[in-house]
Amino acid sequence: MFKINENYLKLPGSYLFSTIAKKVAAYKQANPDEAVISLGIGDVTRPLAPAIIKRLHDAVDEMADEAGFKGYAPDLGYSFLREAIAEHDYKARGVDISIDEIFISDGAKSDSGNIQEIFGQDNKIAVCDPVYPVYVDTNVMAGRTGTYDAGSERWSDVIYMPCTKETGFAPELPSETPDLIYLCFPNNPTGSTITKDQLQEWVDYANKSGACIIYDAAYEAYITEDNVAHSIYECEGAKTCAIEIRSFSKNAGFTGTRLGFTVVPKELKCGDVTLNSLWARRHGTKFNGVPYIIQQAGAAVYTPEGKAQLKEQVGYYQRNAKIIYDGLKEAGYSVSGGVNAPYIWLETPDNMTSWEFFDKLLNEAKVVGTPGSGFGPSGEGYFRLTAFGTYENTVEAVDRIKRM
Amino acid sequence: MFKINENYLKLPGSYLFSTIAKKVAAYKQANPDEAVISLGIGDVTRPLAPAIIKRLHDAVDEMADEAGFKGYAPDLGYSFLREAIAEHDYKARGVDISIDEIFISDGAKSDSGNIQEIFGQDNKIAVCDPVYPVYVDTNVMAGRTGTYDAGSERWSDVIYMPCTKETGFAPELPSETPDLIYLCFPNNPTGSTITKDQLQEWVDYANKSGACIIYDAAYEAYITEDNVAHSIYECEGAKTCAIEIRSFSKNAGFTGTRLGFTVVPKELKCGDVTLNSLWARRHGTKFNGVPYIIQQAGAAVYTPEGKAQLKEQVGYYQRNAKIIYDGLKEAGYSVSGGVNAPYIWLETPDNMTSWEFFDKLLNEAKVVGTPGSGFGPSGEGYFRLTAFGTYENTVEAVDRIKRM
Repeated sequence: MFKINENYLKLPGSYLFSTIAKKVAAYKQANPDEAVISLGIGDVTRPLAPAIIKRLHDAVDEMADEAGFKGYAPDLGYSFLREAIAEHDYKARGVDISIDEIFISDGAKSDSGNIQEIFGQDNKIAVCDPVYPVYVDTNVMAGRTGTYDAGSERWSDVIYMPCTKETGFAPELPSETPDLIYLCFPNNPTGSTITKDQLQEWVDYANKSGACIIYDAAYEAYITEDNVAHSIYECEGAKTCAIEIRSFSKNAGFTGTRLGFTVVPKELKCGDVTLNSLWARRHGTKFNGVPYIIQQAGAAVYTPEGKAQLKEQVGYYQRNAKIIYDGLKEAGYSVSGGVNAPYIWLETPDNMTSWEFFDKLLNEAKVVGTPGSGFGPSGEGYFRLTAFGTYENTVEAVDRIKRM
Repeated sequence: MFKINENYLKLPGSYLFSTIAKKVAAYKQANPDEAVISLGIGDVTRPLAPAIIKRLHDAVDEMADEAGFKGYAPDLGYSFLREAIAEHDYKARGVDISIDEIFISDGAKSDSGNIQEIFGQDNKIAVCDPVYPVYVDTNVMAGRTGTYDAGSERWSDVIYMPCTKETGFAPELPSETPDLIYLCFPNNPTGSTITKDQLQEWVDYANKSGACIIYDAAYEAYITEDNVAHSIYECEGAKTCAIEIRSFSKNAGFTGTRLGFTVVPKELKCGDVTLNSLWARRHGTKFNGVPYIIQQAGAAVYTPEGKAQLKEQVGYYQRNAKIIYDGLKEAGYSVSGGVNAPYIWLETPDNMTSWEFFDKLLNEAKVVGTPGSGFGPSGEGYFRLTAFGTYENTVEAVDRIKRM
């Protein structure tokens, strides 16, 4: 008789955003005339930039023609895209990454979920708390996290690094040494980040302790401050201790177009084995590439027109972030994030729990946000708003919150 | 210190198609004037059908417009596509599959590689031999296959079901009971298949023994005979024992466009737990959907125009299959497959090994095929040719083989 992966049964409750969707649906059904504004899930709203649209049309036309038609893509992705990434995301920042260290994928969620597979069962992971749920959940599925304590909402074999007001929303080096360290800067959900000097400390710590950093840089396009690194490889020694995961979702609006990549430097080794060779094997065995037309769309992101159009698009969301940040501050909230990230993080007022504030915001302001507790136990008492709505909705939502 | 997944190191040698690519590249470098024809890798050559191209352009235009723009897709895929699948792939064949049993994915390779994750470590797998390498390799990576014996080219904990001339290229029910049974019909690489009645025996066997069948139906569009099932759910009782994986690669030329789906019926359970709920959790946690424009392209496959155009496209490859089959038979080869599949399987002449015949074919006929031994130990002494080349190249390749 076949047996299931029992680790799946350990995962508590339903996924955060499903619960939110159900609550919102119930509210809308009870209040059909109310216009609810969502600043909840981190999904973008701007259409794809003209340079990307043009490239998509051109690539579709190629697929219509026997001479231009493309079948299976190269295992790591088309070199025209990997070369553009190496040039613009790395070389332009003084970082030398070769194109066979870049693996094109269907997005940062897949990669950040799948990357743990190339590591053994007996690795201890450390995560920021609160954090994007995928890091922990995929390690639960792999059986790496021990038992779940519903009271503390913590897994016995996970090292939690609280990122709260008390720590300046940055993790501190853990007292127990982890094997794998998930870092996401600028951070989802807190919208905070750390300086390049602080990141260098993590790189030094990882190299010294033999840990591997899984660095999720999905929000790097939102960095506005000079002393913040866009890539972990801007830090010295990062190539021997870090994997970097990148996304096209937030810098180019690809949430529904699906494109990302992961960098695994060849210097990153366990004994004689390069992690690059392991990820290449996984990539070649369990994945069959990103559509040609989507890879072409990705390459358009790096053209002069694409860059100019996307600078404007990111600027649109950055303006929203400022509107939310300033508006809430004015209304007396304690807020952080928003400066180098599209997320604004606020303390719930009057000692409300995250979910209590969620209900209040939905019922009184008709605004949907995300309860901080959904991202980890230290997120309790906090709340996330995203800058990815339209400008008009963002202004209106902030007005409503102010009037609440 | 972080530890790697040691199971990866057990995987022998490099991937079959990489080895072929290297040999071909070396030959071309030494013989730059020779026109080599590849009937090797199962990649298609016809451009996308006009109905699909039109739908892609329309969907791209939607993404250019604020009102039409699509962000994150629904977890299981857009309902317009899942409804079309339920209607045309299942209801039209008398099978009732609900749309929440259908999971849209980026292709059958990903799904057939990832599906083993929802099963426990202590499941014993059975595979046809020879077979698509992904089934075994992904179970090796998960640590489910025991040790590899280089002499016999077999894993200690895998049940091999030989499909050779002696068994009529069909697997026999194994004497040792497996937990997971991978079946691919029409088969890659042999191009043979089994009748619906024979498939019913497998379903009955699985239900009786408590095994789960992972049914890869990627080549169903090539079935020409009436007594062959297009879906395993045409067999009675299959919903309580089988997962079905489907692809758009071979029926619609999506090898470079990436789309597939997996059906996990809700009746399929281990105790009280439905495999549907486990796969939904995996899908929602480690994957973020297929591009909207690609899902639209998939829906165009089911329109009257799409169907007519793809019938012609599949017919083009079926004609190639017949040319290869008839030509090789005429030349004295012992051939099988090709009738319900785009693959022709031949016995190597004069007791040559698969790789010896590969070299002979490349050097003397300038034709590239795939050595049967690359698909499993029982593939030794056989050779695969595919019908996915152009008509002109196929005719020329067969002529060259005849003259060899």
